[in-house]
Amino acid sequence: MFKGVDHVVIAVKDLDAAVGRYETIYGAPVSERREAEAAGMKMAFFRQGSSYVELVSNLGDGGPIAKRLAERGEGVHLVAMKVDDLEAAVADLRGKGVRLVGDPGPGNPIKGQVFIHPSETGGVLTQLVKG
Amino acid sequence: MFKGVDHVVIAVKDLDAAVGRYETIYGAPVSERREAEAAGMKMAFFRQGSSYVELVSNLGDGGPIAKRLAERGEGVHLVAMKVDDLEAAVADLRGKGVRLVGDPGPGNPIKGQVFIHPSETGGVLTQLVKG
Repeated sequence: MFKGVDHVVIAVKDLDAAVGRYETIYGAPVSERREAEAAGMKMAFFRQGSSYVELVSNLGDGGPIAKRLAERGEGVHLVAMKVDDLEAAVADLRGKGVRLVGDPGPGNPIKGQVFIHPSETGGVLTQLVKG
Repeated sequence: MFKGVDHVVIAVKDLDAAVGRYETIYGAPVSERREAEAAGMKMAFFRQGSSYVELVSNLGDGGPIAKRLAERGEGVHLVAMKVDDLEAAVADLRGKGVRLVGDPGPGNPIKGQVFIHPSETGGVLTQLVKG
């Protein structure tokens, strides 16, 4: 069911500075940049082989990343794991009593992102992605 | 040069409890367990496809993981990235002035683990592994 690490999201205070530093480290330009205005986030992606690193910062003053940076500073925000079948994985985890975030509940289609709550995983917000 | 995520190391307080929880989540038994007495660490590995998740806890009272858990609690301890050629990657990063941990210096063979310092990467200790 689980097929390995899909991507790692790293929260940074200054996205442009971090992109520049990662471009130097990787010796390669950023793959893509995106803004998610509704979520108050801006992102930069570095794709490598079958996985990628995503840098994320807050867009504006509010939103979950601003909160996370204020509370815990920079660092790994979440780890995303590939699963064969997202619906089946969520149903399986729900059935085992694993605490999820974004689970629409039995019989409902998954519309957004689904995560395993950090309390289940040693403090690591774990996204499930079809891969 | 960089080829994606090799593994993610997660520091946990109670290794046995975390292994049990991850076995439930993954629906699969732990791949391997190991102890590194000199480093004061015990580890459990969950291999999946071309990457793996490693849980780590302290063995005894001292060591870097005990320190990390006391200071920052549970969570992602490091992210390891695959590189084609470890010696070449370390020389390249050194030449660019990227701060490294465990770099033996020009002309010396790499004997242990090499990391990019968290100050370079948005707070993420980043191991380099040949992969």
